Amino acid sequence: MTSEASQASPFIYHPIGILRSPYSRRIDAPHQSTVVEGTETGAFAKASLELSEWLDVKVIQDLEGFDRIWLIFAFHLSEGWKSSVKPPRGGPKRGVLATRSPHRPNSLGLSAVELVSIDNRTLHLRGVDLLDGTPILDIKPYVPYADAFPDSKAGWIDELDAQQGRCFAPGPRKER
Amino acid sequence: MTSEASQASPFIYHPIGILRSPYSRRIDAPHQSTVVEGTETGAFAKASLELSEWLDVKVIQDLEGFDRIWLIFAFHLSEGWKSSVKPPRGGPKRGVLATRSPHRPNSLGLSAVELVSIDNRTLHLRGVDLLDGTPILDIKPYVPYADAFPDSKAGWIDELDAQQGRCFAPGPRKER
Repeated sequence: MTSEASQASPFIYHPIGILRSPYSRRIDAPHQSTVVEGTETGAFAKASLELSEWLDVKVIQDLEGFDRIWLIFAFHLSEGWKSSVKPPRGGPKRGVLATRSPHRPNSLGLSAVELVSIDNRTLHLRGVDLLDGTPILDIKPYVPYADAFPDSKAGWIDELDAQQGRCFAPGPRKER
Repeated sequence: MTSEASQASPFIYHPIGILRSPYSRRIDAPHQSTVVEGTETGAFAKASLELSEWLDVKVIQDLEGFDRIWLIFAFHLSEGWKSSVKPPRGGPKRGVLATRSPHRPNSLGLSAVELVSIDNRTLHLRGVDLLDGTPILDIKPYVPYADAFPDSKAGWIDELDAQQGRCFAPGPRKER
């Protein structure tokens, strides 16, 4: 096998835990974890993640003290993918890799969630936009110097924000 | 198969491209993409990513206008993993999921890199800390409202920063 062929081989990952969240249906979940205004509860949803049995509890030692963690997860309900997708907020179709759509070539998701507390093998989380049952593939500490670029321009999403405001949340609305 | 068993099944991903970067050996690469002071070039390394043949160029349409993109990648040279790892910056062993170490249960990496330009099927990137040949599994647009939390506390990493300063870069040093 050439080096190139080996590099193009598939990669296989096993869930490190299954997320428990209040969202059982896709329509209930906000489309980004920080976008919760206007959703049914109007609050940051709580969720929990228990480590799978194949992992020693040592793997999460030293996570206390981090306000946020990254979850890399599988969009397990996503069936197939498309080169272009229509964003829920409207406008024309966009290249799928220029969106955070679940319908991607490799259906991986990424979300920065709040780490509230750790209870033995269970992480308690807040600000989670993931469906109940989501398989989590990796956790990483959120490190501002590597991860936080608040002034980063965001192309077509900035344009929509300028038109519609930032906190437009698809999904169920609070009664007014 | 029960729903739980199905959720615990492995997930399989194929590279969407192979990164080309100036770092051919692990010791050459800085440990986070924004940490480059003190490395050999002292500059933000340039890299490129050509889309794999199985993808239509449409997938990257609309990525122009984003200053940064996320790369989710496979640490393809990582062999095995440990529950605790010794960070290159020193101090005691840490739970591997409280670090960005390659030696993780699922050897997935995450890096916010600068998108310089797009030339047909090739993305030109800057601020890349990945090795030449790294298989890229997903690209996502960097969206500040979902991704940027500059004041997020970072536990043991904040403690090291307080002791050593922020921009300590492992790897080769510039001659002085």
